[in-house]
Amino acid sequence: MKNVKYGKCVKCGKTHDAVPDLTTCACGGILDIVYDYGYIRSQLTKEKLAARQERSMWRYRELLPVEETTAPTPLRVGWSPLYEEPRLAEELGLKRLWVKDDGQNPTASLKDRASAMAVAKAREAGAKVIACSSTGNAASSLAGNAAAAGLETYIFVPSRAPRGKVAQLMTFGATVISVQGSYEETFELSRQAIDRWGWYNRNAAINPYLSEGKKTVALEIMEQLDWQVPDYIAISVGDGCTIAGLWKGLKDLHAIGFIDRLPKLISAQAEGCCPLNRAISQGGDWYPMEENTLADSIAVGVPRNADKALMAIRESGGLVVNVSDGEIMAAQKLLGRTCGVFGEPAGVTGTAGVKKLCEAGRIGGDDTVVSVVTGNGLKDVANAIQACGEPISIPSDMERLLAAFAENRISVG
Amino acid sequence: MKNVKYGKCVKCGKTHDAVPDLTTCACGGILDIVYDYGYIRSQLTKEKLAARQERSMWRYRELLPVEETTAPTPLRVGWSPLYEEPRLAEELGLKRLWVKDDGQNPTASLKDRASAMAVAKAREAGAKVIACSSTGNAASSLAGNAAAAGLETYIFVPSRAPRGKVAQLMTFGATVISVQGSYEETFELSRQAIDRWGWYNRNAAINPYLSEGKKTVALEIMEQLDWQVPDYIAISVGDGCTIAGLWKGLKDLHAIGFIDRLPKLISAQAEGCCPLNRAISQGGDWYPMEENTLADSIAVGVPRNADKALMAIRESGGLVVNVSDGEIMAAQKLLGRTCGVFGEPAGVTGTAGVKKLCEAGRIGGDDTVVSVVTGNGLKDVANAIQACGEPISIPSDMERLLAAFAENRISVG
Repeated sequence: MKNVKYGKCVKCGKTHDAVPDLTTCACGGILDIVYDYGYIRSQLTKEKLAARQERSMWRYRELLPVEETTAPTPLRVGWSPLYEEPRLAEELGLKRLWVKDDGQNPTASLKDRASAMAVAKAREAGAKVIACSSTGNAASSLAGNAAAAGLETYIFVPSRAPRGKVAQLMTFGATVISVQGSYEETFELSRQAIDRWGWYNRNAAINPYLSEGKKTVALEIMEQLDWQVPDYIAISVGDGCTIAGLWKGLKDLHAIGFIDRLPKLISAQAEGCCPLNRAISQGGDWYPMEENTLADSIAVGVPRNADKALMAIRESGGLVVNVSDGEIMAAQKLLGRTCGVFGEPAGVTGTAGVKKLCEAGRIGGDDTVVSVVTGNGLKDVANAIQACGEPISIPSDMERLLAAFAENRISVG
Repeated sequence: MKNVKYGKCVKCGKTHDAVPDLTTCACGGILDIVYDYGYIRSQLTKEKLAARQERSMWRYRELLPVEETTAPTPLRVGWSPLYEEPRLAEELGLKRLWVKDDGQNPTASLKDRASAMAVAKAREAGAKVIACSSTGNAASSLAGNAAAAGLETYIFVPSRAPRGKVAQLMTFGATVISVQGSYEETFELSRQAIDRWGWYNRNAAINPYLSEGKKTVALEIMEQLDWQVPDYIAISVGDGCTIAGLWKGLKDLHAIGFIDRLPKLISAQAEGCCPLNRAISQGGDWYPMEENTLADSIAVGVPRNADKALMAIRESGGLVVNVSDGEIMAAQKLLGRTCGVFGEPAGVTGTAGVKKLCEAGRIGGDDTVVSVVTGNGLKDVANAIQACGEPISIPSDMERLLAAFAENRISVG
């Protein structure tokens, strides 16, 4: 890889050759992939990019840690739509607002970006089996992307994972182990199994290439905005890998001169599980927390990528905001009603955070904001129905319809 | 609309001005939109198309029945991926096979193409409210596309509609009436309500513009295949609008000289509800049938677009194939395992049909086939789990994992 220098430990600074099955440093620290930006600048220009037909994350090959000969993975991952939402901006009191709908990915979440990268690197490593533990989306994205590439998968999910995600896993032919316990206990069992059988490791943070896949969401946002930097980018935070990837993508673009400044990050967590935001607020280190929220994808009490995530939020001069489950459900309806975007609870937590920051006057009428929706609401239908209620139910009879409209105070125009 | 001549009744041949709120002929026949292909040939070339940045159904404006000044609808509909699937082709014994994953649309089904068109035409008509009856997907796509455009919706669904689709509707802020009865009874109540309140009508077949939206799936398939015509295109059939739209798109491309021949259609229906395929097999007219299949989207006993659908299958010299619910569930797993594509039951019925035709030797090693997956499996998780079974469930304990692997005869490589 001419564009990659090495993996560097974020804890002790030691550098490691960027082999395909790179994991963590001997000191326990996680690695960051370091690029040769001079080389990338010589290879990639905005004009070259604009002329490219590829509409997937592989559009940004020069900024990705893969061999030049590595084929793109089979499923179309990335290049999700970025919608400008003037009506929602007005409702919230923002100057401009865009929603990046990353639920529009092959397995319906942003995690496809990391899983496609894992599949590409597993192929480089000559692996036939990939494994991971996940709250659900990393799992289903790995299972789908691996199935399309003809690789076998072993997947560990906590038993609380929503039915939609489990259905995906089973359909994609993964061997699924539902662990009766927390995400932390699920992670631990997967770690032991991966050690024992030598599977390719797609665990969050452990594999340093995953955030590099995730960073493509930032590359796309900026290209879709024609390189005009917004004031804030809001995203939900669980394990910390996604916000770390987002930040990495932005810094990459800054380093190669594609953008002239960096936006501030908004880290949105659930009130019932916000160890990283608590660390920022308290100005100290993080410590474990209960996993008490309906937003299952970000219910991570022991975040695996805390170091990179905290660094990203701090470096950007970002904001942190914690939202209740009620606020998450309200954001789900708000995005549906005003934007036609249906996000899962964790998927809309970023938008819930933006709304709360607007209401508190911490951001407002002068600000431009991108809110990333990280997963599709179809993943977790039970919670959506709880949020929105049941439909009117009647027989096929006009009199009954009129009565139901009257009863529900629906005045038909 | 310089590219459109008029709407023509498929029954009596009478022509009607192509006003935005066009519905059916006085004789009861449904209308077909007739184009000025000479004009379109003067406006659109393959080279012009190839240079276009737009990656949505609005890429094909010259072939769509909208005013030149009509803005594209807000959500990114269309340009879904077409995957070549060599492993599945080999497994089935086909020369080449492609899967068009139309579950990759904003509300996760092909119906987004028709609903985006309905929203565009409703705006041209100055309407503020759109209504429809639907087995689920037309409903959720209308609700989503209308919400994004700031239009109000009234939606009638049969009470059997899966939870995923209902959750979408409620989230998009639609007024939803769940009708305790068949699709036919649901349709009837919606018809009465639309008559009474004068809402813009997005009912299948009634509104002749809908198939024109759906035909974009054919335009994309052919452009993605670089205008090389496959022998067959397989698709599931319920109301008949989708296969009629598919055929219309192919004929359009033939009429403007973009393709030099037409493929044959494969019409796949559920054994428990196949009035159109029965008509083809018996060489006569269709008559109503029970709605007895788990593939809810195509459980249509009284197809609303029978005339156009039967004409399309016959004109193409196509094949019909009926599949059992078991065959549908098997196709769901097959597509998941070999392609990483997760379709809902009706979504994979086309592929189930292809498999059955291969096994019967009616298509085979000399044939090239495109199979359209019309909706995402996340829409109907209960059926997917029934098809695939439950995961292994254990505590976080390596001994229990080893025991579970042994019990399930999983030998880890």
